[in-house]
Amino acid sequence: MGDTSPKHGMPTDIRLAIRSGRINSVTSGLAEGYVQANVVILPKSLSFDFLLFCQRNPKPCPLLEVIEPGQYAPNLTCTGADIRYDVPLYNIYRDGELSEPCQSIEHIWSKDLVSFLIGCSFSFENALKQANIPLRHQDMKCNVPMYKTSIPTVTAGIFSGPLVVSMRPIKRSHISKAVQVTSRFPDTHGAPIHIGAPETIGIADLANPDYGDPVTILDDEEPVFWACGVTPQAAAIVSQPELMITHAPGHMLITDKTDNDFSIF
Amino acid sequence: MGDTSPKHGMPTDIRLAIRSGRINSVTSGLAEGYVQANVVILPKSLSFDFLLFCQRNPKPCPLLEVIEPGQYAPNLTCTGADIRYDVPLYNIYRDGELSEPCQSIEHIWSKDLVSFLIGCSFSFENALKQANIPLRHQDMKCNVPMYKTSIPTVTAGIFSGPLVVSMRPIKRSHISKAVQVTSRFPDTHGAPIHIGAPETIGIADLANPDYGDPVTILDDEEPVFWACGVTPQAAAIVSQPELMITHAPGHMLITDKTDNDFSIF
Repeated sequence: MGDTSPKHGMPTDIRLAIRSGRINSVTSGLAEGYVQANVVILPKSLSFDFLLFCQRNPKPCPLLEVIEPGQYAPNLTCTGADIRYDVPLYNIYRDGELSEPCQSIEHIWSKDLVSFLIGCSFSFENALKQANIPLRHQDMKCNVPMYKTSIPTVTAGIFSGPLVVSMRPIKRSHISKAVQVTSRFPDTHGAPIHIGAPETIGIADLANPDYGDPVTILDDEEPVFWACGVTPQAAAIVSQPELMITHAPGHMLITDKTDNDFSIF
Repeated sequence: MGDTSPKHGMPTDIRLAIRSGRINSVTSGLAEGYVQANVVILPKSLSFDFLLFCQRNPKPCPLLEVIEPGQYAPNLTCTGADIRYDVPLYNIYRDGELSEPCQSIEHIWSKDLVSFLIGCSFSFENALKQANIPLRHQDMKCNVPMYKTSIPTVTAGIFSGPLVVSMRPIKRSHISKAVQVTSRFPDTHGAPIHIGAPETIGIADLANPDYGDPVTILDDEEPVFWACGVTPQAAAIVSQPELMITHAPGHMLITDKTDNDFSIF
């Protein structure tokens, strides 16, 4: 069809395009079939607390890899990658305040930083599409909508805050299949945590997401909510760590692992 | 049937019986349907390394709860329990050397200790039995056999060592069902890591397990191997932490959580 976009490119090629600035968009739909990762980078003094936060909140924070202090190469999940450059857009939180997004973190990198890669729901989107379940945000060419909820995470050390969810409208007759398909991927958030009735989990207005873009919901659909790897960014605002570097929502690190590497059956 | 054993007792009653010394046996078959836990207790200085070891080796070391320094109450998984007394038998490793087992660790407890509770395959045994898959070690009234393998764990900080597995003989026609049933329980080791041919994972003689008791294997059965929570004890021997307190193999902490609390579907 003459499509020269990197949609079906290999992860290494896409990471290099991101590193050089040729790609700076959201990554949903890029490198289909490869696992994408939320990124959280913290000073070593906070790393035990955050590792424990992930252990206690495995639905929003399923850990794919932890890179030890000062290392910037995620060798277990993406050979040749560099955590300082290979995310299309970074957020930097200082004492809970978000500063301007940036395309590299070279200027604040230090040997004291520990990097956490957390599974992302984009990873199971390919499996949903293969099951003939369409994805509204991809059809609308926008970012998936994400919302803070009234569901608290389990506190660990300094870290606490609300659970953040991503939302996909799913036709009622497809919801069972969507649950079955995503259950296979516990390391990328797994099955939905809530179906329908957004007000019961503290979401007042689906048209105003806290992160990402609003999407249309049709009459024969329910909003279906999955735990989201942006949850640590909501915890940054509440917990005010001196420094937390993250990806910008929707702008993920693309790993070399396939969705099937992380499926449980 | 006049059976007054605590087999079907509530976890609290059984923990109190263990605490008072009335029960000091292996715990397979006790409090059926409730999740049992492997125990690892370490000085705080080693706790990040070990938490990372668990994250990197989720099949042998699925974390159910981490209890913060100096705390002995596992509040998330068992209300009222005390990690110092409620395991039937403890092992103490100093610099990688196993000392005599003991029934309490009160004498070496300190505010510097961090406790890790790790899922145990006993938890899915009830589900296997409900699927009409018999358990040889329970029928023989002995401990499940466990073996060190030639499969290395992923190193984290000071911790490394061989993967330890538990083995259950399963009738060939039942193996698919056993895989399906245990896949539902990723937090208690999940699906088998190996089926048949023990020599290919470095097990020379099934009749001589490294931990637990040997069991009979019939002609229509294959040995089926699950990752085992005794793996940290093999890591203690290799990695020689100054102190590691664990349960004695087969002598687990019984939690208040049901198997279904941790099943993924």
